[in-house]
Amino acid sequence: MRSGRPRIYPRTLVPPPSVSTRRTPVSERVPVREDLAAVQPYGAPQVDAPVRLNTNETPYPPPPSFVANLRERIGTLDLHRYPDREHGMLRAALAHRFGLGYDRVWAANGSNEILAQLHQAYGGPGRTVLGTRPGFAALPTIARTTATAHAELPLDDAYRVDVDTAVEAVTAHRPHLVCLARPNNPTGVSVALEVVRALHDASEALIVLDEAYAEFAADDALPLLGELPRLVITRTFSKAFRLAGVRLGYLLGPEWVVDDLHKVRLPYHLDAMTQTAGVVACELADEVTGHIGAIVAERERLAGRLRQLPGVTVSPSDANFLLVHVAADGVFDGLLARGVLVRDFSSAPGLQGCVRITVGTAEECDAAVAALADLLGSELPEG
Amino acid sequence: MRSGRPRIYPRTLVPPPSVSTRRTPVSERVPVREDLAAVQPYGAPQVDAPVRLNTNETPYPPPPSFVANLRERIGTLDLHRYPDREHGMLRAALAHRFGLGYDRVWAANGSNEILAQLHQAYGGPGRTVLGTRPGFAALPTIARTTATAHAELPLDDAYRVDVDTAVEAVTAHRPHLVCLARPNNPTGVSVALEVVRALHDASEALIVLDEAYAEFAADDALPLLGELPRLVITRTFSKAFRLAGVRLGYLLGPEWVVDDLHKVRLPYHLDAMTQTAGVVACELADEVTGHIGAIVAERERLAGRLRQLPGVTVSPSDANFLLVHVAADGVFDGLLARGVLVRDFSSAPGLQGCVRITVGTAEECDAAVAALADLLGSELPEG
Repeated sequence: MRSGRPRIYPRTLVPPPSVSTRRTPVSERVPVREDLAAVQPYGAPQVDAPVRLNTNETPYPPPPSFVANLRERIGTLDLHRYPDREHGMLRAALAHRFGLGYDRVWAANGSNEILAQLHQAYGGPGRTVLGTRPGFAALPTIARTTATAHAELPLDDAYRVDVDTAVEAVTAHRPHLVCLARPNNPTGVSVALEVVRALHDASEALIVLDEAYAEFAADDALPLLGELPRLVITRTFSKAFRLAGVRLGYLLGPEWVVDDLHKVRLPYHLDAMTQTAGVVACELADEVTGHIGAIVAERERLAGRLRQLPGVTVSPSDANFLLVHVAADGVFDGLLARGVLVRDFSSAPGLQGCVRITVGTAEECDAAVAALADLLGSELPEG
Repeated sequence: MRSGRPRIYPRTLVPPPSVSTRRTPVSERVPVREDLAAVQPYGAPQVDAPVRLNTNETPYPPPPSFVANLRERIGTLDLHRYPDREHGMLRAALAHRFGLGYDRVWAANGSNEILAQLHQAYGGPGRTVLGTRPGFAALPTIARTTATAHAELPLDDAYRVDVDTAVEAVTAHRPHLVCLARPNNPTGVSVALEVVRALHDASEALIVLDEAYAEFAADDALPLLGELPRLVITRTFSKAFRLAGVRLGYLLGPEWVVDDLHKVRLPYHLDAMTQTAGVVACELADEVTGHIGAIVAERERLAGRLRQLPGVTVSPSDANFLLVHVAADGVFDGLLARGVLVRDFSSAPGLQGCVRITVGTAEECDAAVAALADLLGSELPEG
């Protein structure tokens, strides 16, 4: 083991083959759980492309003031000591931001981990979670891993939920959990707040709204926190706070939910650097979230240009991405061949013919429009 | 939300009451899973004391070269982008360190998270994990959270396992997983490698050795990786690598286990800063682990002094802590009143009358010895 200057590794290594069969005969392995045997690991392909509009990151790095503050603070941490298990400074900063009590705030390694903890606490064997399809793709994965039955709340043709359908679904499935992304991913559509009320009032479930993209939306569900006693909201620092690399999500909800999450969280689940990044992001929130207006404006410009292309339909979006239906085959591959990486949903149930395009910089969005126009043999649209 | 200089929060806030009953009547809550209802959240008390010898951290901060490198590298990260889901640079660094293939290495937020992932993949409803009691206290918690039945492998009076007992236990319980800490925590005793072989060969289970403290031990199980096809070893950067605050653990094992863990891991489970800290720690491993010799020497000095006190028995330890039996009541409180925080196991099954003392600096260990001598009304021992 040598010391001194860091050794340089390539930024991204070739991942191992997804199923290795070289060394160990199947008969000598321990069988993975039966319900996992056929599973393909979840996640968008991580491939390099000049224009990456596939995972709903913001194109703008966090401001230099944030990075400088974070680096300074990391230098003061006692990294040889376990982090504060209660992540108290982070929860205090979030509590201050939202005007809630400290004991109504919780954080974890991405809102994914919070959603998993909620399933561990309120789901599990013999219990049911109700979600939408199309919906956030990680949710059925989390339900499976936690052995929670997953029931579906159907969407209409515009990816909305109506009150009657919502009441029918909770009456039929009697879920312990209802998990909805608002705005929904990959559709960009927000379920109406009156539907959230109906899901709550017609059930005994914990209503979980994953508001990962709420800062880009016309409204959010924060006002409902004081109204519905079984509502929690999860949010993330990955999008509006530009910190996808930090993996930090948080929950706002009743204090008994936070108490229950203590029973399933791994001890010291949130490391000191991540806690610090969240605190600094709250302190510098105006600067860190300063790009939101630009993203929302660019989203509308991009939608307007795409809608001028032949055979292209764009769903109205409350998020930093657009769900785009194209009446053509091979859109994902055709865009990638032209240097633009988007997310392919063309073979997903209810999303046939669709790709999801993250709102990037104006240049990146122009590249996506140009690539799609070229693919469709169309003139460049205006705007 | 104001910007500018970071606001200062107290380092540790008062945690919320463990069960809040103030605002929401129980009838209006969602019931937590039945098997969690009576659970107390796992974790040592986080209280302030002048001498903290309770959570097996090293007393020595990571070297300045590590911190400087880490801070420099964090300044170069694209924090607005998701981290490398395959954490390729970290796995490559660990693979290089241990001379293993890249596809036999895996990392997560502490070895706790890896242990949880192993339970999710190979345990779960209808499956059994075999562990020891006394044993690593997080393991029964993880078994419960993943709905895995937990069976016990008994220890003898010296906290050892013999081959016959091991074979009997796996024959009786037919576990899918056997999880042992080696050296064990809180006993400090290492299960013999021939017992590991017997557990493997008499079962069809995945044998999981949690080697969190192996770098302080006389031997480790790495040579068995090439011998036993169903063996995995988990390790951590928390102890010998002085990075408890970073929460980074890793697994070494067969490639099919790494494949299976992909099926249960949350996407992007490991953040970019944590991955970077691990890479830098591997690059500077000699410096970062340079304190191990001092800890081992101090452990032996501390054990020798404690053994001179009346009514005190000290188990031989392969780790950076000592299990100390004291023929007296109120040892934990008495030491804390004298400014020394240790871990209380006096009412734990099989550990009556025991506390666990982390090996700190010579000054910290002297303070612990002096406090215990004072508590017992004894002269200060020599050494």
